[in-house]
Amino acid sequence: MNREELFNIIKKKQSFLCIGLDTDINKIPPYLLDSEDPVFEFNKQIVDKTHDLAIAYKPNIAFYESMGAKGWDSLSKTVNYIKKTTDEVLIIADAKRGDIGNTSAMYAKTFFSTYNFDAVTLAPYMGYDTVSPFLAYEGKWSIILALTSNSSAADFQYLRDKSSGELLYESVLSTGCKWGNTDNIMFVVGATKAESLRNVRKFAPDNFLLVPGVGAQGGSLEEVAKNGMNSHCGLLVNSSRGIIYASKERDFADIARAKAVELQTEMSEYLKELV
Amino acid sequence: MNREELFNIIKKKQSFLCIGLDTDINKIPPYLLDSEDPVFEFNKQIVDKTHDLAIAYKPNIAFYESMGAKGWDSLSKTVNYIKKTTDEVLIIADAKRGDIGNTSAMYAKTFFSTYNFDAVTLAPYMGYDTVSPFLAYEGKWSIILALTSNSSAADFQYLRDKSSGELLYESVLSTGCKWGNTDNIMFVVGATKAESLRNVRKFAPDNFLLVPGVGAQGGSLEEVAKNGMNSHCGLLVNSSRGIIYASKERDFADIARAKAVELQTEMSEYLKELV
Repeated sequence: MNREELFNIIKKKQSFLCIGLDTDINKIPPYLLDSEDPVFEFNKQIVDKTHDLAIAYKPNIAFYESMGAKGWDSLSKTVNYIKKTTDEVLIIADAKRGDIGNTSAMYAKTFFSTYNFDAVTLAPYMGYDTVSPFLAYEGKWSIILALTSNSSAADFQYLRDKSSGELLYESVLSTGCKWGNTDNIMFVVGATKAESLRNVRKFAPDNFLLVPGVGAQGGSLEEVAKNGMNSHCGLLVNSSRGIIYASKERDFADIARAKAVELQTEMSEYLKELV
Repeated sequence: MNREELFNIIKKKQSFLCIGLDTDINKIPPYLLDSEDPVFEFNKQIVDKTHDLAIAYKPNIAFYESMGAKGWDSLSKTVNYIKKTTDEVLIIADAKRGDIGNTSAMYAKTFFSTYNFDAVTLAPYMGYDTVSPFLAYEGKWSIILALTSNSSAADFQYLRDKSSGELLYESVLSTGCKWGNTDNIMFVVGATKAESLRNVRKFAPDNFLLVPGVGAQGGSLEEVAKNGMNSHCGLLVNSSRGIIYASKERDFADIARAKAVELQTEMSEYLKELV
């Protein structure tokens, strides 16, 4: 899926919502624990009730990995189920991988071939070599960590380079833009720094941004939309816990849908200026 | 295992060799493909023939992950087999994970609890939040990416901070040292920059360094030892392909042992000054 196709789906669904599948066996409705694969069963019901509202699903790989091989099976079934249900969402592996050479090529193979993800989040510390094997896959996306929303983001991301005058996260944006194009590079930008989004747009005006941190992490959707939108929307705003764990009862998927509708309705207002 | 215990094993084995288990089903001896779990069978034979020479084993997680759930099974069996064989090695997950909050906690659980690794490599881009959940596990190690050996390491690692005057990788070293202590923090430092090791030692004089890139990647062991050793040796020098893929025949494990002996013999020379 390229940028234009993504934008078309955004316009059609009137949404730029990404639903984070941070599925934790200890947090899902207890009645699901009797099913053969509780994690998959949970994801399946969330997908059934939200796929017309979501532009992307973002399984958080740590949650599956922590369960060992059976977690990877649940992940695989989830990706396949989403693919079977709709071709109008992007499936993002939130993996934050970052290695080089043949190792990086193995990670690209994992997410784009072994599992059929459309996009993967990547850490930029080791530079271009981290991203290049992922860019070799036509129609797939690399989503590079740029500015994150956690308190220790400032440990390194705000260091200012003496020769260019750029902050580290600004260098990641400007350099990352050159590694690929607006059809295969996105950036992760933390929503709790909504005022920084204006600055991000100076360095990456046209790329899509994946914005976590709306909802449970406290970011304001309005701020994000006001400061981060571009002509192609250019935003995928993620909510995880605020949607998927809104209820622990048997109606959890309906409640998740209601939460997703709330966000999608608000998003449709912000999209009015574009469409 | 703390730093003193690690140093005692180094003295006993006269080695600071880490063997990288970058086990690729397409590169192992073809006759193994008939066994039930070729990847595990390969690792088992390597471990049987080298555990008296190695201070650490470092499975490269990408290689297992790319095989899906069965790759994680092979990984689990490998870790358990090493633990059963000897308690005198460190088992390092070369995973380069880097996330925050409950996601980082999940990754820590994966490697230190679901799988029984002793150490894991981590990417520093998101700062302290990335590492703190790992530090909560007593007796386990966080190995933070500092200076890597790939060509695009220069994209960001050599940016010089205007206010401190430090290069980014120097900031990672000096800040990373403060996050923990010499019993739970190591750094990854690329061997092909052996001359940079002297500089690394200004910022992290006492920590162990995990040094990849000797052998196939072209680094010189002598340079590494000369510039990187401290009073507790302070080095784990990794070789992967140069050992494990030295032969594709039925005698591959014997040939791997011979290659490991070569490195261990050279290492014992450099250790003479310490013991």
